[in-house]
Amino acid sequence: MYKSETHIRVRYSETDQMQYVYYGNYASYYEVARVESLRQLGLTYKELEAMGIIMPVLENHSEFLSPALYDELLKIVVTIREKPSVRIKFHYEIFNEKDKLIHRGETLLAFVNQKTGRPCRPPEAFQKVLIPYF
Amino acid sequence: MYKSETHIRVRYSETDQMQYVYYGNYASYYEVARVESLRQLGLTYKELEAMGIIMPVLENHSEFLSPALYDELLKIVVTIREKPSVRIKFHYEIFNEKDKLIHRGETLLAFVNQKTGRPCRPPEAFQKVLIPYF
Amino acid sequence: MYKSETHIRVRYSETDQMQYVYYGNYASYYEVARVESLRQLGLTYKELEAMGIIMPVLENHSEFLSPALYDELLKIVVTIREKPSVRIKFHYEIFNEKDKLIHRGETLLAFVNQKTGRPCRPPEAFQKVLIPYF
Amino acid sequence: MYKSETHIRVRYSETDQMQYVYYGNYASYYEVARVESLRQLGLTYKELEAMGIIMPVLENHSEFLSPALYDELLKIVVTIREKPSVRIKFHYEIFNEKDKLIHRGETLLAFVNQKTGRPCRPPEAFQKVLIPYF
Repeated sequence: MYKSETHIRVRYSETDQMQYVYYGNYASYYEVARVESLRQLGLTYKELEAMGIIMPVLENHSEFLSPALYDELLKIVVTIREKPSVRIKFHYEIFNEKDKLIHRGETLLAFVNQKTGRPCRPPEAFQKVLIPYF
Repeated sequence: MYKSETHIRVRYSETDQMQYVYYGNYASYYEVARVESLRQLGLTYKELEAMGIIMPVLENHSEFLSPALYDELLKIVVTIREKPSVRIKFHYEIFNEKDKLIHRGETLLAFVNQKTGRPCRPPEAFQKVLIPYF
Repeated sequence: MYKSETHIRVRYSETDQMQYVYYGNYASYYEVARVESLRQLGLTYKELEAMGIIMPVLENHSEFLSPALYDELLKIVVTIREKPSVRIKFHYEIFNEKDKLIHRGETLLAFVNQKTGRPCRPPEAFQKVLIPYF
Repeated sequence: MYKSETHIRVRYSETDQMQYVYYGNYASYYEVARVESLRQLGLTYKELEAMGIIMPVLENHSEFLSPALYDELLKIVVTIREKPSVRIKFHYEIFNEKDKLIHRGETLLAFVNQKTGRPCRPPEAFQKVLIPYF
């Protein structure tokens, strides 16, 4: 299992008139958290795209336990629990400033060759770095 | 079962550099579609809030079958399959301009009394309009 | 002068905890309004991009006179006041449901050849349709 | 004059299919930058709202000199050039990773008493901290 942590501060633009973070904005929190989790391994999603590989999202599941509020510094714990193949699943747990678990999510992504539009294996560099965790 | 249809045109702001609609933007498509499905019944979410009731999202699930593209006029079919209680679940099916099913989603929401922060039953008016469908 | 009108209903996702439309979301209202104003002339921005021309924004100016509120059906009046050259300026006036002017904006865009990255003239089709208005 | 610096990394959600940061997303960069510039003075916008004061935006002006790209770590220099009264103007300069100036913006905000909806002076604490700079 690979586990990492990222912090994100809630922006005003991300709140809605219910005074909560709008439910659709968690997806971009997930995105930041998974990109940072890869960066901590020395991998950047930007380089992946430069290599002609894109990672579209296939499935997403979210549980909203308690609202996230404006200006809170959220902690997002990302875990990859299974060895990635042509797909990779990220799990997210979000904690608020009082360290209360307020949100759980998971996202399934594919590795896709941008030219052919077909699923592909993660690049060598990617596999090399992640394999030791599984 | 209650079923309704809404159309939404993809905005440029909703695309990302993969040239797809960003996966986080489907949540706001769901929101528009469920609000319009209620409006077709003579109910507006705005009035609900004016009555002191908010409807936070508890759970969300999305399946991305094929990408939605810029400027496409999407058709969103919304169904409510079970009689709402203190919770209500909306199902969404999104079709592109070629009438291909490209996305499936579902969202579970609660009725919450804004003052007390506690779950509550949907208001009379709401129940009266929806009950004939179940 | 070319003048057109578009209607946009405020989404919940576009509000913030001040209970107003977040000031950054007017840019996407402008985008929808100018794209629709061109569509009313038989031009689509999508086709323009298919022809290898992109229209990045160079300048934007906004005046927030009164807040736009959730679920309001806004009317956006778009005008092009000067004959477009390698640049084109759109003016926007936004009216709320009571027909009160609540917002004024203007956006200067360039025509750019996507391959070379250099400014270019608007395509023939574009000029032909717009010239009669100036 | 008061001057401060903030760094923001471009999110995938903020790009559009032109492969640039969507022009409407700069507004939220401004927001983050001005909130952080106040935080560096010991002031938080969150506390301001807790005191019953909101700061709606009255005017916004943006110049897009060069595009911001995915994953770039942008530097935003915020300056307040005039002593705030019932209004306060923030200037922004955004630099990309090569330290090239790519964007200039300014935003005029009001101090408003949330209850009365009327303009008001900035609170004591706010004035005390800022006055030494003018």
